Amino acid sequence: MITSLQNPKLKWVRTLLSKKNQRTLDHAFVCEGIRLAEEALQCQQAPLLALYSSSLSERGMRLLEQCACETLEVEVTLMDKVSATETSQGLLLVLPFIENPLPANPDFLLLLDKIKDPGNFGTILRAALAFGVQGILYTSGSVDPYSPKVVRSGMGAHFRIPLQKVDGEYLSSLSRCVQLLLADVENGSPCWEADLQKPLCLIIGNEAHGASDTVRQLPHQNLHIPMPGNMESLNAAMAANILLYETVRQRKS
Amino acid sequence: MITSLQNPKLKWVRTLLSKKNQRTLDHAFVCEGIRLAEEALQCQQAPLLALYSSSLSERGMRLLEQCACETLEVEVTLMDKVSATETSQGLLLVLPFIENPLPANPDFLLLLDKIKDPGNFGTILRAALAFGVQGILYTSGSVDPYSPKVVRSGMGAHFRIPLQKVDGEYLSSLSRCVQLLLADVENGSPCWEADLQKPLCLIIGNEAHGASDTVRQLPHQNLHIPMPGNMESLNAAMAANILLYETVRQRKS
Repeated sequence: MITSLQNPKLKWVRTLLSKKNQRTLDHAFVCEGIRLAEEALQCQQAPLLALYSSSLSERGMRLLEQCACETLEVEVTLMDKVSATETSQGLLLVLPFIENPLPANPDFLLLLDKIKDPGNFGTILRAALAFGVQGILYTSGSVDPYSPKVVRSGMGAHFRIPLQKVDGEYLSSLSRCVQLLLADVENGSPCWEADLQKPLCLIIGNEAHGASDTVRQLPHQNLHIPMPGNMESLNAAMAANILLYETVRQRKS
Repeated sequence: MITSLQNPKLKWVRTLLSKKNQRTLDHAFVCEGIRLAEEALQCQQAPLLALYSSSLSERGMRLLEQCACETLEVEVTLMDKVSATETSQGLLLVLPFIENPLPANPDFLLLLDKIKDPGNFGTILRAALAFGVQGILYTSGSVDPYSPKVVRSGMGAHFRIPLQKVDGEYLSSLSRCVQLLLADVENGSPCWEADLQKPLCLIIGNEAHGASDTVRQLPHQNLHIPMPGNMESLNAAMAANILLYETVRQRKS
């Protein structure tokens, strides 16, 4: 049983939780709690390491038995210290980055352009999964999708939806295959007048500054969500949610 | 200057922050920070008491001068202790409950039926304001809309949109004037096929259990948000957001 914060494996997990650099270097991240572990294993993710404590429930123990990797017990109060959540369920999995490939000829993509808030990023992942988005692209300067808060708020969407970091060159090629549609606070067509049936990539820009110059310089159309009420704008997650819905509505109704 | 947590006025503010009973009794709540105070004063709310500390910015000081009520300085570290937020801006206003009346013949209402999560309640308030909802109704068993977290996440929507607690009898009368439309995970028409142009009250039920029996026993129609993807349901705030958008789309497009 691990009883010291100085244990090398425990130190590694803590660094993966707190440092993006370490995650990038090791191509690995930490997934916490029973629900997420269930999702991961259901989606054939192969853990690299599993840490558990005696506070783990029976349901959790059964999951642990499914892990083909090394499993190490950690002293309960130590586990609570390592955990990024307030109430640890006594289970941490280290997983390799998820490599779900984008489909060959996608017609429904979403680009997150320097989205900074982990809660927004995770919530958008969930909504994207709900509405059948085929892939999430994100630009440099976005929050790390493998940071603990994004993983937590994504509630397992990470395992099911392709997630890919892209640069200007990629997006430039992409713009030749699908229509780039940039959500704007007021410019462009009302979203219900835009044609969302053709192959497209919706773009949600940074919470405070909107889309980056890289993205604005690509061929694109603007669209906005008409809001008759007394509020400047919706937050990024809400806007994404509505545009995903509107796309599905136009294609299905 | 107030330098002790035992100061009666400070104790009152702390109880208003932490206890729903006290808020109900005094018909008053606490609003924290500069942005919210600006909104409150812009909307002609008359504070009952203002507390500030020396960390208050110039912009905050100008707001303080606009308050016709008693203003008391609180020692900085004490203010941080009282504050419900992590980084206090040095300004707390005690405000009376807001009494914005519902319009006479509303045609766009939203009922929150035992919504428990303060973040959801506040986010829905913002979305409702953005989409021009004429009033928010809520049932007993919902989170208190004047709790600090709801006030904070509402970002000032409280001051602009009528907010009213209602019972079964009220809702029964209401059902004779407007169509009650209950958001369901799968039952009822797809929301884009439902007629949302007629006078209506959208209903969002509890996050875990859906609508209460009181509401289900009223004459109503179900509607759902079709989701082609791999996710059981959206959270309550996301669902509300989409149904509000869809109502506006049908009415405006």
